[in-house]
Amino acid sequence: MPDHSLLDPLAHGTRAAELTSDAAFLQAMVDAELALTASLIDAGLVPGWMSAVCAELADASRLDLAAITAEGRAGGNPVIPLVKHLGARAEELRAGASDHLHVGATSQDILDTAAMLVGHRVCGEVLASLGTLADRLARLVGDNRDTRLAGRTLGQQASPTTLGFIAAGWLDAVLHATAALERVRGSLPAQLGGAVGTLSVLTTIAIARRQGTPPAETVDLVVSGFAGRLDLAEAPIAWHTNRLIICDLATALAAATGAAGAFALDVTVLSRTEIGELGEELAPGQGGSSAMPHKRNPVTAVLVTAAARQAPGLVATLLGSLLAEDQRPSGAWHAEWTALRTLESVAIAATTGAAHLAGRLHVDRERMQANLGLTDGLVFSEQVTTILAEALGKTAAFALVERAALEAATTTRPLQIVLSAHLAGDSPITRAIDDSLRARVWSAFTPGATDGAAGLGHTAAGIDRVLRRYRGCALSPGVTARTESVAPPTDDEGTPAT
Amino acid sequence: MPDHSLLDPLAHGTRAAELTSDAAFLQAMVDAELALTASLIDAGLVPGWMSAVCAELADASRLDLAAITAEGRAGGNPVIPLVKHLGARAEELRAGASDHLHVGATSQDILDTAAMLVGHRVCGEVLASLGTLADRLARLVGDNRDTRLAGRTLGQQASPTTLGFIAAGWLDAVLHATAALERVRGSLPAQLGGAVGTLSVLTTIAIARRQGTPPAETVDLVVSGFAGRLDLAEAPIAWHTNRLIICDLATALAAATGAAGAFALDVTVLSRTEIGELGEELAPGQGGSSAMPHKRNPVTAVLVTAAARQAPGLVATLLGSLLAEDQRPSGAWHAEWTALRTLESVAIAATTGAAHLAGRLHVDRERMQANLGLTDGLVFSEQVTTILAEALGKTAAFALVERAALEAATTTRPLQIVLSAHLAGDSPITRAIDDSLRARVWSAFTPGATDGAAGLGHTAAGIDRVLRRYRGCALSPGVTARTESVAPPTDDEGTPAT
Amino acid sequence: MPDHSLLDPLAHGTRAAELTSDAAFLQAMVDAELALTASLIDAGLVPGWMSAVCAELADASRLDLAAITAEGRAGGNPVIPLVKHLGARAEELRAGASDHLHVGATSQDILDTAAMLVGHRVCGEVLASLGTLADRLARLVGDNRDTRLAGRTLGQQASPTTLGFIAAGWLDAVLHATAALERVRGSLPAQLGGAVGTLSVLTTIAIARRQGTPPAETVDLVVSGFAGRLDLAEAPIAWHTNRLIICDLATALAAATGAAGAFALDVTVLSRTEIGELGEELAPGQGGSSAMPHKRNPVTAVLVTAAARQAPGLVATLLGSLLAEDQRPSGAWHAEWTALRTLESVAIAATTGAAHLAGRLHVDRERMQANLGLTDGLVFSEQVTTILAEALGKTAAFALVERAALEAATTTRPLQIVLSAHLAGDSPITRAIDDSLRARVWSAFTPGATDGAAGLGHTAAGIDRVLRRYRGCALSPGVTARTESVAPPTDDEGTPAT
Amino acid sequence: MPDHSLLDPLAHGTRAAELTSDAAFLQAMVDAELALTASLIDAGLVPGWMSAVCAELADASRLDLAAITAEGRAGGNPVIPLVKHLGARAEELRAGASDHLHVGATSQDILDTAAMLVGHRVCGEVLASLGTLADRLARLVGDNRDTRLAGRTLGQQASPTTLGFIAAGWLDAVLHATAALERVRGSLPAQLGGAVGTLSVLTTIAIARRQGTPPAETVDLVVSGFAGRLDLAEAPIAWHTNRLIICDLATALAAATGAAGAFALDVTVLSRTEIGELGEELAPGQGGSSAMPHKRNPVTAVLVTAAARQAPGLVATLLGSLLAEDQRPSGAWHAEWTALRTLESVAIAATTGAAHLAGRLHVDRERMQANLGLTDGLVFSEQVTTILAEALGKTAAFALVERAALEAATTTRPLQIVLSAHLAGDSPITRAIDDSLRARVWSAFTPGATDGAAGLGHTAAGIDRVLRRYRGCALSPGVTARTESVAPPTDDEGTPAT
Repeated sequence: MPDHSLLDPLAHGTRAAELTSDAAFLQAMVDAELALTASLIDAGLVPGWMSAVCAELADASRLDLAAITAEGRAGGNPVIPLVKHLGARAEELRAGASDHLHVGATSQDILDTAAMLVGHRVCGEVLASLGTLADRLARLVGDNRDTRLAGRTLGQQASPTTLGFIAAGWLDAVLHATAALERVRGSLPAQLGGAVGTLSVLTTIAIARRQGTPPAETVDLVVSGFAGRLDLAEAPIAWHTNRLIICDLATALAAATGAAGAFALDVTVLSRTEIGELGEELAPGQGGSSAMPHKRNPVTAVLVTAAARQAPGLVATLLGSLLAEDQRPSGAWHAEWTALRTLESVAIAATTGAAHLAGRLHVDRERMQANLGLTDGLVFSEQVTTILAEALGKTAAFALVERAALEAATTTRPLQIVLSAHLAGDSPITRAIDDSLRARVWSAFTPGATDGAAGLGHTAAGIDRVLRRYRGCALSPGVTARTESVAPPTDDEGTPAT
Repeated sequence: MPDHSLLDPLAHGTRAAELTSDAAFLQAMVDAELALTASLIDAGLVPGWMSAVCAELADASRLDLAAITAEGRAGGNPVIPLVKHLGARAEELRAGASDHLHVGATSQDILDTAAMLVGHRVCGEVLASLGTLADRLARLVGDNRDTRLAGRTLGQQASPTTLGFIAAGWLDAVLHATAALERVRGSLPAQLGGAVGTLSVLTTIAIARRQGTPPAETVDLVVSGFAGRLDLAEAPIAWHTNRLIICDLATALAAATGAAGAFALDVTVLSRTEIGELGEELAPGQGGSSAMPHKRNPVTAVLVTAAARQAPGLVATLLGSLLAEDQRPSGAWHAEWTALRTLESVAIAATTGAAHLAGRLHVDRERMQANLGLTDGLVFSEQVTTILAEALGKTAAFALVERAALEAATTTRPLQIVLSAHLAGDSPITRAIDDSLRARVWSAFTPGATDGAAGLGHTAAGIDRVLRRYRGCALSPGVTARTESVAPPTDDEGTPAT
Repeated sequence: MPDHSLLDPLAHGTRAAELTSDAAFLQAMVDAELALTASLIDAGLVPGWMSAVCAELADASRLDLAAITAEGRAGGNPVIPLVKHLGARAEELRAGASDHLHVGATSQDILDTAAMLVGHRVCGEVLASLGTLADRLARLVGDNRDTRLAGRTLGQQASPTTLGFIAAGWLDAVLHATAALERVRGSLPAQLGGAVGTLSVLTTIAIARRQGTPPAETVDLVVSGFAGRLDLAEAPIAWHTNRLIICDLATALAAATGAAGAFALDVTVLSRTEIGELGEELAPGQGGSSAMPHKRNPVTAVLVTAAARQAPGLVATLLGSLLAEDQRPSGAWHAEWTALRTLESVAIAATTGAAHLAGRLHVDRERMQANLGLTDGLVFSEQVTTILAEALGKTAAFALVERAALEAATTTRPLQIVLSAHLAGDSPITRAIDDSLRARVWSAFTPGATDGAAGLGHTAAGIDRVLRRYRGCALSPGVTARTESVAPPTDDEGTPAT
Repeated sequence: MPDHSLLDPLAHGTRAAELTSDAAFLQAMVDAELALTASLIDAGLVPGWMSAVCAELADASRLDLAAITAEGRAGGNPVIPLVKHLGARAEELRAGASDHLHVGATSQDILDTAAMLVGHRVCGEVLASLGTLADRLARLVGDNRDTRLAGRTLGQQASPTTLGFIAAGWLDAVLHATAALERVRGSLPAQLGGAVGTLSVLTTIAIARRQGTPPAETVDLVVSGFAGRLDLAEAPIAWHTNRLIICDLATALAAATGAAGAFALDVTVLSRTEIGELGEELAPGQGGSSAMPHKRNPVTAVLVTAAARQAPGLVATLLGSLLAEDQRPSGAWHAEWTALRTLESVAIAATTGAAHLAGRLHVDRERMQANLGLTDGLVFSEQVTTILAEALGKTAAFALVERAALEAATTTRPLQIVLSAHLAGDSPITRAIDDSLRARVWSAFTPGATDGAAGLGHTAAGIDRVLRRYRGCALSPGVTARTESVAPPTDDEGTPAT
């Protein structure tokens, strides 16, 4: 268990720590070094017997992580000591082997490539969590197409909506974030440029070694072989100071975190004691308090929200590194390391947590129905106005209902009662309203009646559009398969260890 | 000239202020309102005679901006008074006309849609500037394929490179940002959901008015007509609290700003008095100081850099609004307004400024050559090591040159001299190096000789790849046409008013 | 009315726009220039007749703001053209007068000093708003010492508290922010260093002009006269690249904004339809919706919250400028301008808005009491546990109440009923509890009874400490006088124009 | 060695990891729990025999950190399992002991207090590093009062200054940050409020237990005893949702980081190959490159700069948590944990690194002198203008030198030569200039001559003011003693392990 976990409970039980650990970065750096050597072998620039050496070097856990970390201070990055340690082990295996490691590369080539490898794996993990989250939200949508509750705006009950429609909105955001993250994951490039990006060492070696093939072709072979072996994209040119790639990754991770956080925030709100429409189904011992025996805190929702609050500042740090000068920068690059790995950890924790939450959501339909009654009819004012507008025009209808609503609020009488008084007697208004319209007005206060259903408006269309998008989502490798359109959450990723 | 220009000199003379002004937002809100009415007419939900009314209302400059602004405080946004003012003018034109404005919409529908319209126009402007910047950088690349200068890393001379290669790196970032911005521009959606996103008002009206067409189809017609008339995309569902769209726009604008800023930062560095390799060609009166008569400050480069420093914090604010609760949020939405428009202004100013700078870049090839000589050969150490490695192996060659470089630095003698002493006499090392190799070592110190050329490595390949990408760039409407692959900068956008 | 107001409704009706306008900055720059000349006259370095010239130049509104803005692009800041325009006007008044303006100063001296002047005035305005806010919160505390409501943690009802105690917490934050802002306001320094901070021009002139006084003393006289005339502090050394001062100002403004925002956020939450314990008393036409006639949105609270969401990103931009290189920086300085003035505007709007809100807070004591009953006794579990712990020990009492609370929640029976069953019959537990303790347990469920009062704990002490701090607050000039300890809000700053 | 060190080389060898580790937080939480029990004993609310139990519990390293971490997920924070584990160990020591732990506290009381304890220690460490940094900068100032070099603005040589003056500017920032941090360190408060801040549990117990002393006094005794035993301040009221304290700490740490970073950034710039005026004296093996044997990177300066780039985003996250609702918040609190500890680590690493750098700064006075000659006299233009202004007036003198400077630049002739041509012959200008003035003009080009010295202006005064402030600095306990005014850096904190 890594340090810093004590204050990062949401990450616990997820792969956040593992995928962004020092060990993971060290392994990714080793992967990068060995992919370089392998592609040099393929291009004929390094002898074939290095393959056997590389096979022995492949397991980074056999390196002295502590020593490499300590020695990284002198040169300002861990690649310099890594190359030294790798070289020493290589020499033990075969004299002269160290000469064929790190050929043509600079430290940043290895560390940037390692960051892309880690980033690729992190994206995969986040996509898997988003996939599970999407599955569970889709099921929630399907189960609650007609589950009515009060829609709220600026914290106030506004007009009725359905839980299915709200959940379709959460799902839409998850699908949006998923598409962005898949696009970015597919574009993460390897980095190979040498000291100033020009690949001059490899070119010089290629000129010296090869007669048949033009040297430029040989170098191209190395570059594409390097990227290909690591399953990364190939950049058109070294990107040592073009950090848009890092920003793409960061903003896609932030989008995923934000989509998870927006859902969790709504759960936090709707599980307030006084609202009580949603809740996190808590395992025994979960959600408790050290002070109050009755407490059942929506702990996952709160922690996911907290995770999402951390992403913007980290993205700001990473965007700041777009201002990177020279051929390799004096600080902009170094400033990315901690911010990126923290953001990666946050994104995994937030999305895994949200998927967990979506699998344990308690829906209290009775409270939803009860809360719709809290305003004594005010929540139906938009619908009532729309019906009255058919006879009175929108402006007059709005003014009438506004007056009635104010009167209802100040006298604490139901809007329907107040309005019936306004619509009684003989007046230009009452004359404009025939019995049929009048009946429709009253029915607007009666959820389930014809016009009450109309009050739910176009929710079915929005839900269907989002579900179509959900079903059609191009699934990336590693993302939970979606054999049924709305698969039940049978597995249980994201459960905290108990 | 808008307020706040005094402290925003880079924006002056650009379209930043115009495109993000209150007038621009007011017009965009009016555009949104009228597109809604027009699509309602098409769907048969509003009488045809409203077309003539709308035509009269189309010019937002005839509205009382000051009054609308002042009245916006009461409801917390400017749409409520806008609807009132528009309605009053409509009533003057025809009694009852106000009943047919803002039908089915909520304030956020109009303001979000207006923000997308403004965003769309801003993207177009930024893309045009990026296009000009790309053209000028491509020309710079073409003109300086073989212009040698010292590549620098961590502020220190590292190995030679070419200005063409460096500029290709700048261009690559610009093309990356362009592609991202084009993608986002094409995806900006209209917003139409009504009070809680369910389109209940339109559905109710459609049920009441139309017999033939199913009401849901009628509503769909309004929604797609609304987006289509405004040339915006259609969202699958209301996005009142799914703010990923805003974040996409913000991060794409930040990427464009960052690409401009990275180029400008390099110009700032390379135009330092002691480096003097690049400079901004200053018009008379430009770049001066109030204190020092000799000063020729790289003022555009500095201002573009400054603009780029502002983007990350603004993006952080906007990402923070992903945490938006309920059906329309209590603050997250409102917090976006100033941050987004400021970011839009920054992006226009930065990219226009960078395009201006690229058109006025002074290249001092003599200083580049002279600076390459400053280290008395140390800048060629990587190349020398690579050649020696052919005989000695990389590890031994590195150690040898490292020793020689240290000796050269401490004795302030040229590396070549020190090295020739190390390679003299009889030793295992000297025996391993034959005359041909020795000659190649010395040639590495002589820019322009064969191996010196090899020292530039793979720059041609990188340059060509970036130029291919540049030429193949799918041009969006509104982006400067690229009839020649490397068009000369004939126009002069971005020139400050004189 | 300045541009950008349309999307900044909270600032409308406040002094935010006025104090941070271009006109305000231009006036502050003119103030700085003339204070410099005046202190040079005092030191004998500029002829006395310049006093009359300066008097004529003092009104910045007579300068051509548009021209100065436009000409600012060439040199990258508005001071260069300002000096030109001021000089031209001075020459009209008396030939040779322009020679005595801007003597010894660099652009940044003037703009930094102007920023401090504006900052000083902004601090004064924010302090005045905080003062009004504090007065109103103190009155709220006094009026609601015993107004019971449910304390909430993680969104769940936790234990009872009082509104007075909650408001004392808000007040404590306001007093904290006030103290920080007063400290910063008093420390804002003038900037005067000349081109590279060394005051070389003034020194040279002092050497040339003065026989008696040592030149260094003369220069000191100018420097301290400059600061003194502007009522600013004197920095020990030029701070052109030491931007900690800007950060102090920014973080103090952010603290004020945050204190306002935290209060407003609680109002937003407590005015939710389902909670309804607080509300903003809305004027007619305020808080309405364009879609729903019944809506009474807590519009001020929401806008203050939104303002507070903008501060962190702006602070991040300003903190970023701590990395300022050389004697005057290439971008770090320029990046501050927009961020600082936006933050200043946000701080004024947020604190004025919060003061307005505090003056219009509707307290619904009935809802508070009713909500305390919502959990059927669970909200008293901590108190009940504490009483039982006297007999059972804390651990056993906690476990007992935890079991009872779970049972109460799952069976929807009152905790008191469930607990009475647990405490019936004969068992080690029941034997440990005597009648007197049992009576105290039941009384804990009865607000107002003896132990119920104890359940409010130490609220009186906390309230008194905060009120003492409030009364003892050293009042700065310009801050609302506090003649009575808890003055009623007689005035009405912060009311939106109607 | 903790995880995440591999990518944090600057922190290596400092106390950053140790002071902000999980173990440090766990110990601080235990310290808080035991201080609470101890103060309860003092107040007579807990039996005296608990003292012996507490003594046995004091060493947090005997707790199962991994288990506590894992169990923290269920309740969302590590305090709940900590209390369980502590209680279990207490019961082993004496039955019933667990009843007397965590009495009256809520999780946030313990974790906030622990954060203050860690923060206090971190502040001490940062202050010690700032103290060493100040000592070394003061020595640098003293050694280089008259070390002339070119002052630079916007990257261009502007006017001469001295290294002592520049270093005094760095020192001034360090002293500014020191004062802020000392103030904050002294104000960090303990947190003790119980579930909703009201201290109801303690009050209830005090009512039940004590006859003589009024219960409120007893509770006050506990609260002040708790803070006093931990050497923390006492807050007037619970600050569970008043997070200004966290922001004060964060911004003071950011100020310290920024002061360190500003110094390091200047070193980075001045050690550029083409400038070469400063350098980091590198130990063997330090500052190397994996690609270029000659590289001597200013690695500490770069890493300190990189650290400083991370602070603003972290501060933004923490400022965001000012928006904390209810009596304890749903996410705002949890979002602080990682950001604060990362910022603390960054601040320690940055200031320790800067102190290290200041102790190893190589000053190349020859390069400084040589660089002053690079502009062929342009760097003296301000001084020349000032002298000429005595005869010609400032405006005419500025115009004359501006013309000459332009001519010098375009013809690449020395300014002195060009100017002598302008001052030859007979003209109103030449007639105004007598021989004495002419001599002074020429002397301005000759560093070291009388007026040349005047050209350094008021540097001595600024230096002396800063040194006085340095010597007078109120030293906090724990800060390196300053027995001599400018102590030599005898110790060597900050050296990386070798």
